[in-house]
Amino acid sequence: MAEKKQVEQITSMETDFAQWYTDVVKKADLIDYTSVKGCMVFKPAGYAIWELIQKQMDARFKECGVENVYLPMFIPESLLEKEKDHVEGFAPEVAWVTHGGLVPLQERMCVRPTSETLFCDFYKNEVHSYRDLPKVYNQWCSVVRWEKETRPFLRSREFLWQEGHTIHATFEEAEERTIQMLNLYADFCEQVLAIPVIKGRKTDKEKFAGAEATYTIEALMHDGKALQSGTSHNFGDGFARAFDIQFTDRDNTLKYPFQTSWGSTTRLIGAIIMVHGDDSGLVLPPKVAPVQVVIVPIRQQQEGVLDRARDLKAALEKAGLRVKVDDSDKSPGWKFAEAEMRGIPVRIEIGPKDIEAGKAVLVRRDTLDRSECALDAIVKTTEGLLETIQKDMLERARTRRDEQTYTAATREEFEKIFSEKSGFVKAMWCGDVACENEIKEKMSVTSRCMPFEQEKISDVCVCCGRPAKKLVYWGRAY
Amino acid sequence: MAEKKQVEQITSMETDFAQWYTDVVKKADLIDYTSVKGCMVFKPAGYAIWELIQKQMDARFKECGVENVYLPMFIPESLLEKEKDHVEGFAPEVAWVTHGGLVPLQERMCVRPTSETLFCDFYKNEVHSYRDLPKVYNQWCSVVRWEKETRPFLRSREFLWQEGHTIHATFEEAEERTIQMLNLYADFCEQVLAIPVIKGRKTDKEKFAGAEATYTIEALMHDGKALQSGTSHNFGDGFARAFDIQFTDRDNTLKYPFQTSWGSTTRLIGAIIMVHGDDSGLVLPPKVAPVQVVIVPIRQQQEGVLDRARDLKAALEKAGLRVKVDDSDKSPGWKFAEAEMRGIPVRIEIGPKDIEAGKAVLVRRDTLDRSECALDAIVKTTEGLLETIQKDMLERARTRRDEQTYTAATREEFEKIFSEKSGFVKAMWCGDVACENEIKEKMSVTSRCMPFEQEKISDVCVCCGRPAKKLVYWGRAY
Repeated sequence: MAEKKQVEQITSMETDFAQWYTDVVKKADLIDYTSVKGCMVFKPAGYAIWELIQKQMDARFKECGVENVYLPMFIPESLLEKEKDHVEGFAPEVAWVTHGGLVPLQERMCVRPTSETLFCDFYKNEVHSYRDLPKVYNQWCSVVRWEKETRPFLRSREFLWQEGHTIHATFEEAEERTIQMLNLYADFCEQVLAIPVIKGRKTDKEKFAGAEATYTIEALMHDGKALQSGTSHNFGDGFARAFDIQFTDRDNTLKYPFQTSWGSTTRLIGAIIMVHGDDSGLVLPPKVAPVQVVIVPIRQQQEGVLDRARDLKAALEKAGLRVKVDDSDKSPGWKFAEAEMRGIPVRIEIGPKDIEAGKAVLVRRDTLDRSECALDAIVKTTEGLLETIQKDMLERARTRRDEQTYTAATREEFEKIFSEKSGFVKAMWCGDVACENEIKEKMSVTSRCMPFEQEKISDVCVCCGRPAKKLVYWGRAY
Repeated sequence: MAEKKQVEQITSMETDFAQWYTDVVKKADLIDYTSVKGCMVFKPAGYAIWELIQKQMDARFKECGVENVYLPMFIPESLLEKEKDHVEGFAPEVAWVTHGGLVPLQERMCVRPTSETLFCDFYKNEVHSYRDLPKVYNQWCSVVRWEKETRPFLRSREFLWQEGHTIHATFEEAEERTIQMLNLYADFCEQVLAIPVIKGRKTDKEKFAGAEATYTIEALMHDGKALQSGTSHNFGDGFARAFDIQFTDRDNTLKYPFQTSWGSTTRLIGAIIMVHGDDSGLVLPPKVAPVQVVIVPIRQQQEGVLDRARDLKAALEKAGLRVKVDDSDKSPGWKFAEAEMRGIPVRIEIGPKDIEAGKAVLVRRDTLDRSECALDAIVKTTEGLLETIQKDMLERARTRRDEQTYTAATREEFEKIFSEKSGFVKAMWCGDVACENEIKEKMSVTSRCMPFEQEKISDVCVCCGRPAKKLVYWGRAY
């Protein structure tokens, strides 16, 4: 009973979404807090999701010519300071190393908050001729930003990510790569994480420190808040000029190359939780579920039951699925609740009666629907069910996102929606940062992006009434 | 010509082994130096080797029940200080973070040099009952040790590694896991890296700071120097006592659990270079070669040649091999030299005459032997050749290692060998650290390990002449 209670006691989403999130993160055993304030432990169940994200994203990177490298974690202060906007953006939130062993350093270094400056320093040695271009490099690592407020996966002082850094002979090629990687992120979110995203460009106010253009994918969480889920930046030749990187082009003249960077982080795990989760806990898309199928034997002490469960496991694993038999000494009810909390996509229940009847019970985590299946068809059925779940999760998330996306033609409508509801609001903007600032100040709402798919909702800015230039997605964000 | 020269100009091993090593590391494009003294860039060719090591080692870990996690990179000073021997061993060489953003930290933190203290802090929260044991966790990350002298792959201020940390109910179980992981490392070195190793136990003088027993695998480099290539530590309950980790056992009493840790690093890449390399550059074992087969088209401008080369690539890739066609505008001779420098195990040369005759030329990197092969048998032949190379490389390395392993029964013999030769010397030891110190001081020779396979070479210590307790492998080490 105490055990059963343990897996039940999470706050409901309706009651307190933030507490629900924290409960799920803890009860699904994804993360633990540490003695280091703002830093987390990724426990096996949490890290395994990241490994599956890494593996599948990295394969997509490699298909489009990305090569992995590893650069140092330290940035000397003088290097960080070379690009003016960049240092202003990051210096206030870096961790500074001042001593190596017992000796004070001659120049202090920060732990990388992002590695543009290190890649520039590296490319300066590597790039001399058009023959050396492009370089399309990426690294998987952790970075540190000394945030005041932290939340598991969404914002922590150290987090895991990948950062791509490329360098090209022309602006056009850099722009093409910037968009290519944004599209890769968007496809990945939809096809692997079952999370639909809006693709667009950030306003100047919201763009990355040092970038000419920042593109973003924006997802909508269950509570109607937006989550920036991946960004891709075109730097033009700004960093190359600041770091004096030049190459001899085909026409034998010296030119500055063009650079991009793009990143996605363990925050994607936060997105999975908040897009798909429910009051029974985590709901994992099959493609990133460390365990895709849990087999729960019923009356497991009866002869033959555990053997049959293990045979089934072997058959499913042979088909390439990730499977676990829960043969612990807990009750079936407890096991069901735990498997639900951990978000395992499919549960198979098999007991003596099922075996006699040559069948088993399948339960989908996403809908909690139960169905029976003949044992000799179970591998194919389970495979099909996992595909269906993956597809349905995306469609459900898309429907919910669309339902929580509103349109405002006037300031009145805009304010009314944000005072009553939560979600994306599509509204026109004049292009002036003053309007963004006013909206942020009055309503805690920020511009999420200027979507690639522009529409015309009205002729005037939703804030100031002057002629509108762009459609913007607005929202409250994590 | 300038290009050709570029790939030829490495120092020969005989002339200057250290310079040869540095040349190979640079010319094979594995690594670059950075503005951060003692920290390196892993370039694509270097990092890809590490990825292949990771992938294959991680699969072996998972087969024996290891789960991956990720713990923070920072250790508060008070945490580092909890275990006395441990802090003494590491405090002199850590990097200290003193500021977060603009604000001084209340307590300074070091960047992890290793994570025993963090795992203890974590396990203290996780382990309460015998039901919570064992935990068999590992993480892939980078660590920092503020070394004065650094060398690519062998010793750098930041390096990549994996560190396993386990916790058990009994000493016996911890000891079993310690040995199991040492055996895993040894098998991995032999089967994947084609590097034979000696397994043994470190003397107390050479053991890990805080360990009860340290086990090691020791490899011998081409120049006769030893390289510690992986270690596994049994901590007993020392850390548990220092961190006050206790669990309720089946008999309902509170007990201290037992811990282990084990690690291997990017230094393994240094071992690959120094065990297998030759005066033409790197020689990669097929299992960790990012490119296993390079196809060099001859007279590639002639119609059909490049098409045929690409067909061949597709056929080899279909068989699961990692293949590259070098269709750059360099000369075949330059391409051969570059492929050799980069250590690509098999080169296939294919030109118009070969195509007409329905054959191609295969060249093994390890022996530089050439052979002809019918095109319709080339996939099977290449697969077989890669297996043969992998096997032969191990056998050659073993033969050389055995040839460079000597036996000394007396101090005179011992000194004579080390004054004339380089390699392992097997000799008896009384067990007294004074003798180790004397040998180190006089000959710069250290005890590498007390091998699991003990022999009796004489009755007395090679240093002091008192009764001997153990056979020891001695050597000069990286």
